[in-house]
Amino acid sequence: MPAILSIGTELTRGELVNTNATWLAERLTANGFEVAAIETIPDVRATIVETLWRLAARHRVVVCTGGLGPTSDDLTTACAAEAAGVPLTRHEPSLEAIRRRFASLGREMTPSNAKQADFPQGADVLPNPVGTAPGFQLALGGSRLFFTPGVPTEMKRMFDEQILPRIAHLATNDTVQHHLKTFGQTESRVGELLAGVEEAFPGVTIGYRAHFPEIEVKVHARARAKTDAQALADAATGEVRRRLGGFVYGEGAADSFPAAVGRALRKRGLTLGIAESCTGGLVGHLLTSIAGSSEFLLLDAVTYSNTSKSTVLGVDPELIRAHGAVSAECAAAMAQGVRRVTGADVGVAITGIAGPTGGTDDKPVGLVYFALSSADGVAVDERHFGGADRQRVQTLAAWTALALVLEAARTLPDTKPAAAPPRE
Amino acid sequence: MPAILSIGTELTRGELVNTNATWLAERLTANGFEVAAIETIPDVRATIVETLWRLAARHRVVVCTGGLGPTSDDLTTACAAEAAGVPLTRHEPSLEAIRRRFASLGREMTPSNAKQADFPQGADVLPNPVGTAPGFQLALGGSRLFFTPGVPTEMKRMFDEQILPRIAHLATNDTVQHHLKTFGQTESRVGELLAGVEEAFPGVTIGYRAHFPEIEVKVHARARAKTDAQALADAATGEVRRRLGGFVYGEGAADSFPAAVGRALRKRGLTLGIAESCTGGLVGHLLTSIAGSSEFLLLDAVTYSNTSKSTVLGVDPELIRAHGAVSAECAAAMAQGVRRVTGADVGVAITGIAGPTGGTDDKPVGLVYFALSSADGVAVDERHFGGADRQRVQTLAAWTALALVLEAARTLPDTKPAAAPPRE
Repeated sequence: MPAILSIGTELTRGELVNTNATWLAERLTANGFEVAAIETIPDVRATIVETLWRLAARHRVVVCTGGLGPTSDDLTTACAAEAAGVPLTRHEPSLEAIRRRFASLGREMTPSNAKQADFPQGADVLPNPVGTAPGFQLALGGSRLFFTPGVPTEMKRMFDEQILPRIAHLATNDTVQHHLKTFGQTESRVGELLAGVEEAFPGVTIGYRAHFPEIEVKVHARARAKTDAQALADAATGEVRRRLGGFVYGEGAADSFPAAVGRALRKRGLTLGIAESCTGGLVGHLLTSIAGSSEFLLLDAVTYSNTSKSTVLGVDPELIRAHGAVSAECAAAMAQGVRRVTGADVGVAITGIAGPTGGTDDKPVGLVYFALSSADGVAVDERHFGGADRQRVQTLAAWTALALVLEAARTLPDTKPAAAPPRE
Repeated sequence: MPAILSIGTELTRGELVNTNATWLAERLTANGFEVAAIETIPDVRATIVETLWRLAARHRVVVCTGGLGPTSDDLTTACAAEAAGVPLTRHEPSLEAIRRRFASLGREMTPSNAKQADFPQGADVLPNPVGTAPGFQLALGGSRLFFTPGVPTEMKRMFDEQILPRIAHLATNDTVQHHLKTFGQTESRVGELLAGVEEAFPGVTIGYRAHFPEIEVKVHARARAKTDAQALADAATGEVRRRLGGFVYGEGAADSFPAAVGRALRKRGLTLGIAESCTGGLVGHLLTSIAGSSEFLLLDAVTYSNTSKSTVLGVDPELIRAHGAVSAECAAAMAQGVRRVTGADVGVAITGIAGPTGGTDDKPVGLVYFALSSADGVAVDERHFGGADRQRVQTLAAWTALALVLEAARTLPDTKPAAAPPRE
């Protein structure tokens, strides 16, 4: 029943993929709505006004994104007012919030930003906790129109916190959806492992979303009553988990692989040192994108040159001359080196050829060596990430390194000395 | 003037991002069309028929994708026939082509595939050279409707080979678009700097795309003839560049800030060492995401703990005790340290508080110190990135560090000894 309207010439010119509409469609579906239409229109006044009228006449809920910015091509608010036949009025609390936001950034509010405090008369303002432009809700005929900025982080937060609670009671189905996050298998292989689950649990649909390099599995259960949908979703999710085993690293749309690795390290009280080469800092970046990583991460040495591998990590220059920087031997020495330099419990190293150039017949682009050093010794792994796409190789290599750390955090024996046996 | 219609419940449920529509929009725009609307609807008979009518009444060209498959939820062909008020008829050459295709794959054609040889009476069949389902063209009122499968490879090939040649003469404009990439100003400030450019160059529209943390400025020129549009775009772009000055780092949709920094370093033959703390490897990750970064990047030391700042970079533990790890003094020592350890021409350091926790009254979340060390000495910079969004602080800090390196690469005096004057 709801409709989604994306406003922006950058979308109708194909300069930007409309991921906002997909995200909204998924969230609405997960909350028991059937999205009836998604429309995308350019920043053209007559088109916006006409489309708002038409959608309001047919849909009880319309979620609109985009066109709330400060520049002259941002027309949405003015068009919403025109569609509703009301003037724009300035909302002083929003103006003050915008002014404070600029002040906190040490800057002065510009006149064009003041425009973002104007709303159609009678609209409910929806505050934007993470950006400048507030959104708003407007009644038009029997329809509720919601407007948010097009910036994905702002739109998502405002939808979840302010729009969804206002429309949840209008949902037609009771549905429950679980998200399982997996890494380490292709989408087609995950699909094969889950063949027959839908048949075994009527009312359940299994969805897949490949968000490179991970695969998200969505278990969507639909029933007349919420409790039935919940029970169905739980049962089917249990079966999915059983079939996918260790490939499932987390649950919930917001969980992330680096967060799972960080949780596992913290749970065991383990510290980590990283030595990167071809991944160029991506492993450290992934781990430090989660708060609290300073509890376990001591050092990420991105030793991009051979000399720095020796000066920082103590890799023997002779070893590099003999085996090359991209070798099992060098990976092992890097992992041991970063563990020695930092005193970390776990040292992980990555060295390989990200491409697009630099490959040879012996050592092609996509060849990456991994090493994991711990009190148990050092283990080396060789992988081939085919194709010559640099970003793809770097991403797969960084995730593989994280998977090795996760595995170590799950399986390393406790190194703390056991309590002394009671004396007689 | 054209419209794009995507048909498929997987799209309105958000299970799949609609990249087809974006691709079509970009191709149509590049060929002189202004896409007036993009609509996405579920596989629901009444909705499809009604949408085809409405779009045909308004748009001379409608490109429709999806719903031509063999399964029961593929309704597009039947709906097109219903919209046109004609029966379906079997197209024997298509049936034969489908049969041959299955035979070449060593499989037998199923009855449900035979359905893919049915078309609305009077439609022109558009053969599918890379898949089973042919497409078709249908006149409805004054509009031409084109239908292709939703499989991207099939859709793209059919659009380029069969649809575009049939509509190219309907393009209304010759358009030329330039993209300028900028960093260092907010979207609203960029908009103010460019106020009046559109008025000064009739036929030019200026578009903005905030892709945090950069702002892309699009100069779109439209004229009757291609040469006029080109001249107009060039002139307006010159004016935009003049007004934005050093904030423009590159041109072209594909250029990136790290690539611009890498170009500037390579042009001067400068090498770089990085010492990161709160950015956790992001600076190195950004620079190494571009090919060829090994030419200038020697080391990125992500010294996340105080101890590693001392052991790896030689920062005096006494200095950290006296001033803290987040201090101008520590930043300077880190930048000098990474330059000393690596022998790089330029050393850059970042230390700050990314949050969400760890802030104090004196040193709040968002406070970041930068230092740049070179033969010229060391320069320190203090910035406040307001708000408690960890990713935002890290991203702004990493880009600011890159901006400092870019500035250094542009302005550092040549250190190579000048050629000796010719002797008499």
